[in-house]
Amino acid sequence: MISEKFPSRLLENAVNEFAKLPGIGRKTALRLVLHLLKQDPAEVEIFGNSLIRLRNEIKHCRVCHNISDTDICNICSNPSRNESLVCVVENIKDVMAIENTHQYNGLYHVLGGIISPMDGIGPSNLEIDSLVQRVAEGNISEVILALSTTMEGDTTNFYIYKKLRTANIKISTLARGVSIGDELEYTDEVTLGRSLVNRTNFEDSIIQ
Amino acid sequence: MISEKFPSRLLENAVNEFAKLPGIGRKTALRLVLHLLKQDPAEVEIFGNSLIRLRNEIKHCRVCHNISDTDICNICSNPSRNESLVCVVENIKDVMAIENTHQYNGLYHVLGGIISPMDGIGPSNLEIDSLVQRVAEGNISEVILALSTTMEGDTTNFYIYKKLRTANIKISTLARGVSIGDELEYTDEVTLGRSLVNRTNFEDSIIQ
Repeated sequence: MISEKFPSRLLENAVNEFAKLPGIGRKTALRLVLHLLKQDPAEVEIFGNSLIRLRNEIKHCRVCHNISDTDICNICSNPSRNESLVCVVENIKDVMAIENTHQYNGLYHVLGGIISPMDGIGPSNLEIDSLVQRVAEGNISEVILALSTTMEGDTTNFYIYKKLRTANIKISTLARGVSIGDELEYTDEVTLGRSLVNRTNFEDSIIQ
Repeated sequence: MISEKFPSRLLENAVNEFAKLPGIGRKTALRLVLHLLKQDPAEVEIFGNSLIRLRNEIKHCRVCHNISDTDICNICSNPSRNESLVCVVENIKDVMAIENTHQYNGLYHVLGGIISPMDGIGPSNLEIDSLVQRVAEGNISEVILALSTTMEGDTTNFYIYKKLRTANIKISTLARGVSIGDELEYTDEVTLGRSLVNRTNFEDSIIQ
């Protein structure tokens, strides 16, 4: 049976599929589908196949669990990176954000989420045991905890800290402080307080 | 060569493809692709295939040029619709908008655009000859011109009118007037002027 609104089942299916994406409503979905209808069939086939291949062929790096086309990702397999430094992040977007700063030359460890009892995510759902294992292998001298500054992030940080504190490595976390470009009067008091306690030598801030 | 920003070529391809869609930037594209990565592979395959099938299998109705799964669309093939009435529209979205009013029981003729010399679209690029042909076959008593009230729409209306005026049929156009819910003081003067000239009997407006 064809719906009253759509003149075609194929059109309706495509709109329904697009509308499942987050932030895409039915009006936008229809607009996108009608745009695709005007494109070259070969172009649309490339689009469709790129999604199918993405989902079926993408791998997770055996070492850091970042997504990758190969068994070991191009960061872990890069010989010019510092293998003794591991930055722990929540997901692949955080890896991309840190890579874009061009300030970090170590490796990563992607947890795949953070501990969040409300969402039913506990330590066993995350790549924490594999991090402990990596540290136990003995080549790592420092682990940088780079999780969100939320309650869940802090909980995860603390859980990892407890797991790693017996290992003979440095455990650090990202500096908290006033964002560059922020006006002091609009900075929240916790951040401002932390930036006072952890104030840095002025000369160091110039070199930065 | 893998781009510096993306840890995976497959990911980058999918993001590039999404970012080609109108109104989807690279940040949104990445968000959508990472969402798909979390979905079931079978679900993503259904999504990808729905787009490929849409583009490859969809047809245009032989009679009205609306998009359709079959040679003749479900509106043209519906015996309960009034075959002597044809509403001329620009595209399939207009068909859907008119269908949603539940006020029209005739057939359609989808031009596939409007005359727009700026965009290089002339009468020969549109389904105007096939409309003249449909009228010449003699079963149509009225053609309703339902194009946008823009300069291009008016040009197209007039072109079609000139082509059809020798045929012994009624040629009508959508009523222009104050939109329902509009405040008079914010209505543009052309619309307000037209609604005065074409004022309707009050009793008719109640029945509407």
